[in-house]
Amino acid sequence: MPLRVTVWGENVHEQEEADVRARYPDGMHGAIAGAIAALLGDEVSVRTATLQEPEHGLTDEVVRATDVLTWWGHAAHHEVDDAVVDRVCDAVLGGMGLVALHSAHYAKPFKRLLGTSCSLRWRNDGERELVWTVDPAHPIAAGVPHPIVIEAQEMYGEHFDIPSPDELVFVSSFAGGEVFRSGCCFRRGAGRIFYFSPGDQDYPVYHEPSVQRVVANAVRWAAPQVRHDVPDSPESPRGWFE
Amino acid sequence: MPLRVTVWGENVHEQEEADVRARYPDGMHGAIAGAIAALLGDEVSVRTATLQEPEHGLTDEVVRATDVLTWWGHAAHHEVDDAVVDRVCDAVLGGMGLVALHSAHYAKPFKRLLGTSCSLRWRNDGERELVWTVDPAHPIAAGVPHPIVIEAQEMYGEHFDIPSPDELVFVSSFAGGEVFRSGCCFRRGAGRIFYFSPGDQDYPVYHEPSVQRVVANAVRWAAPQVRHDVPDSPESPRGWFE
Amino acid sequence: MPLRVTVWGENVHEQEEADVRARYPDGMHGAIAGAIAALLGDEVSVRTATLQEPEHGLTDEVVRATDVLTWWGHAAHHEVDDAVVDRVCDAVLGGMGLVALHSAHYAKPFKRLLGTSCSLRWRNDGERELVWTVDPAHPIAAGVPHPIVIEAQEMYGEHFDIPSPDELVFVSSFAGGEVFRSGCCFRRGAGRIFYFSPGDQDYPVYHEPSVQRVVANAVRWAAPQVRHDVPDSPESPRGWFE
Amino acid sequence: MPLRVTVWGENVHEQEEADVRARYPDGMHGAIAGAIAALLGDEVSVRTATLQEPEHGLTDEVVRATDVLTWWGHAAHHEVDDAVVDRVCDAVLGGMGLVALHSAHYAKPFKRLLGTSCSLRWRNDGERELVWTVDPAHPIAAGVPHPIVIEAQEMYGEHFDIPSPDELVFVSSFAGGEVFRSGCCFRRGAGRIFYFSPGDQDYPVYHEPSVQRVVANAVRWAAPQVRHDVPDSPESPRGWFE
Repeated sequence: MPLRVTVWGENVHEQEEADVRARYPDGMHGAIAGAIAALLGDEVSVRTATLQEPEHGLTDEVVRATDVLTWWGHAAHHEVDDAVVDRVCDAVLGGMGLVALHSAHYAKPFKRLLGTSCSLRWRNDGERELVWTVDPAHPIAAGVPHPIVIEAQEMYGEHFDIPSPDELVFVSSFAGGEVFRSGCCFRRGAGRIFYFSPGDQDYPVYHEPSVQRVVANAVRWAAPQVRHDVPDSPESPRGWFE
Repeated sequence: MPLRVTVWGENVHEQEEADVRARYPDGMHGAIAGAIAALLGDEVSVRTATLQEPEHGLTDEVVRATDVLTWWGHAAHHEVDDAVVDRVCDAVLGGMGLVALHSAHYAKPFKRLLGTSCSLRWRNDGERELVWTVDPAHPIAAGVPHPIVIEAQEMYGEHFDIPSPDELVFVSSFAGGEVFRSGCCFRRGAGRIFYFSPGDQDYPVYHEPSVQRVVANAVRWAAPQVRHDVPDSPESPRGWFE
Repeated sequence: MPLRVTVWGENVHEQEEADVRARYPDGMHGAIAGAIAALLGDEVSVRTATLQEPEHGLTDEVVRATDVLTWWGHAAHHEVDDAVVDRVCDAVLGGMGLVALHSAHYAKPFKRLLGTSCSLRWRNDGERELVWTVDPAHPIAAGVPHPIVIEAQEMYGEHFDIPSPDELVFVSSFAGGEVFRSGCCFRRGAGRIFYFSPGDQDYPVYHEPSVQRVVANAVRWAAPQVRHDVPDSPESPRGWFE
Repeated sequence: MPLRVTVWGENVHEQEEADVRARYPDGMHGAIAGAIAALLGDEVSVRTATLQEPEHGLTDEVVRATDVLTWWGHAAHHEVDDAVVDRVCDAVLGGMGLVALHSAHYAKPFKRLLGTSCSLRWRNDGERELVWTVDPAHPIAAGVPHPIVIEAQEMYGEHFDIPSPDELVFVSSFAGGEVFRSGCCFRRGAGRIFYFSPGDQDYPVYHEPSVQRVVANAVRWAAPQVRHDVPDSPESPRGWFE
């Protein structure tokens, strides 16, 4: 059975800004989905979903049939319906993987699952980002150059207000001198979450083979180990296990 | 300046059940506040607040004047106003300490700050709980017997659906054989959170000196290192720090 | 390519004590190797090595050809040659997996890789051990009953003087009331280490299907992600990566 | 009782190189000791010890009378006597704090306590280091500018082959683009260990007030919570705690 991947895109910049549309003619979600499909081949079946679809394309049926969800959003976080956020968070706690990309640090499901403000320092100045691997034996770092060189990117800098990651995989530096924990693993409930910061709409970052490699590795890493509903608190008589 | 401690109590069992009232004539919050004051003396100034007060006794003024908040709730989690939950969570992210006690594993602020279901296994059968220290050099374990013996307690057992604690201090076993991560530290934003499971309304657990010692140690440990509002994401021009 | 597993056994109790030999006619290493081979089939090729062989059966050639090493020792830790310990530790830092079993908490490679005393509380009284899963989505817990019931075992109790595990998978309780962090993951260099405490020579623990399942899962989990020599500190001229 | 601090210096560069002696007329250990004494005042009593003294100045008596040991070494790691290394490591496991500075990443006690190669990437090119706080509520970051700007320093870069730190406090970037986990907390046995990378003999880094503040904060943080011998494994009859 292939891993069922849903690539969610907010799809607002692509609709409203000609330069973004030129950079990503199939949308950022299209570029991301294409990269995952190309790199993982038969291992995956990939579909996309966007904000503008009914229930943002994340109906109960779709979420139940999704093993790993990737999420890119920026301009319209507040337009994401809370019922869909509930559904996504419940699915993650029950085992679905979540790969949160770039400005998804402020996406509702990411913030709710982590519990902190997820704020950070930023500057859109087209400067060089170097993505360094601090955990070279981590599966998400497999085949990734050290460092990844991204010629132009938005700067995201510390302090990044997240819980201490369960595993820290990448740390970036920027031409201006800032650093950022750019690749972070979290485990919440039965689900695995990976946050990866490269990828602004103003730069062709998702066309970079190394960035695509990270996203594909993350999809593989975030595959569910188990899948169930969000657990209740069972009353358990003495000796129930005997 | 003494550490300003607010002991929050749901105060429902004490009002509705004669045996709980007999066990805790000043309420569980009264017993907890008294223990903290007795053990920490001039180091602290302690007040109580309860669900039944306006804004549950947690007005903006009170929360701003609180360094560490302890929280006990069980029967009426759903009655806690979401605006108060927002205020408490924001204060924790900005540096206020939170000590969540027993059934507060399901309290709204605790669940929201952790992001998981916080479910667990349980049985109210008055059985012996042994609380073992797994991190003897942790400040919360200072002066605590190994193990703490609690003759009768409600059983809380694994799986406890929490994020992996940043520091695990205590693990309990029960006469029926279950185990539970009973003393867990989390750091969220600028705030420190300690969860401690002993303490059901049906048993005189908060009168136990060893349990009181843990709660007092936790209050000290959770003292704010800094205090600020929940951070925004500042735009930072290149070289802003030079 | 199958995963190459070497099961190392001290093989002293089996030689010197008739009851142990009766319990484990092929040695404990034989029982462990057989279980891994039976459960993982074509995924693995399994060999054994023992203390009594030249270089304890862990020649440079064998270690280089080993992906995951399991280790059981007790009576003769001090007889393990330091040159072999160096070789094993270097291999782990370079990516080889290590599964340390029961009394191997005091094995030289385990202690050296962790850096602490690895001391614990113990009692050989044939009492029931319950092994509880505290991380149900961990691959090492896949297919493992909750709890594993082991009718008779040596007691290992806290405090267990180890660094805080990178992942805590199992916690045990014993009939006498003690608890123990019985399944602990560590990552050191490029290697993965799993410690699993059930398995004393005086009890038929390695014949238990659930225990065998954990060991097999651990072998799979500890598979190398990369493999290299212990790294030096390279001098790196400015711009070396451009 | 003041905290008893011993500042250990290898004291080789200062003896052999005129420029280092000019930069640090009292030795690097003298500068570090002076800074700690100036910043912590009555809280501490500070002494120094050097490689050239009998038992490197770290006799059993001195180590027993030391609450926190700071360590700087570079050119002569191999000259440190293994008996002294044993004594220092045992003291740390028993509760003594250790602050390892810069090239002490390769000091014998540091490597032995961590168990990994502690290798890193380096370049001595006098370039700007920016030290960023990634855990602003950590006591070691109190009063520390964000970032610390060090105009000229040796570059230390990833990959730094250490176990995942129990707490990550600082991450540095360098003018050449590399990043480094420059402030890392570890807990081993009952002891606390802090590694801080700024501070090469070729630059006046220990005269920087911000660097001095970090070292002083680290000394305070590493203060023993308990102090005992390295623990054995006690046999414990059933019910020993009743």
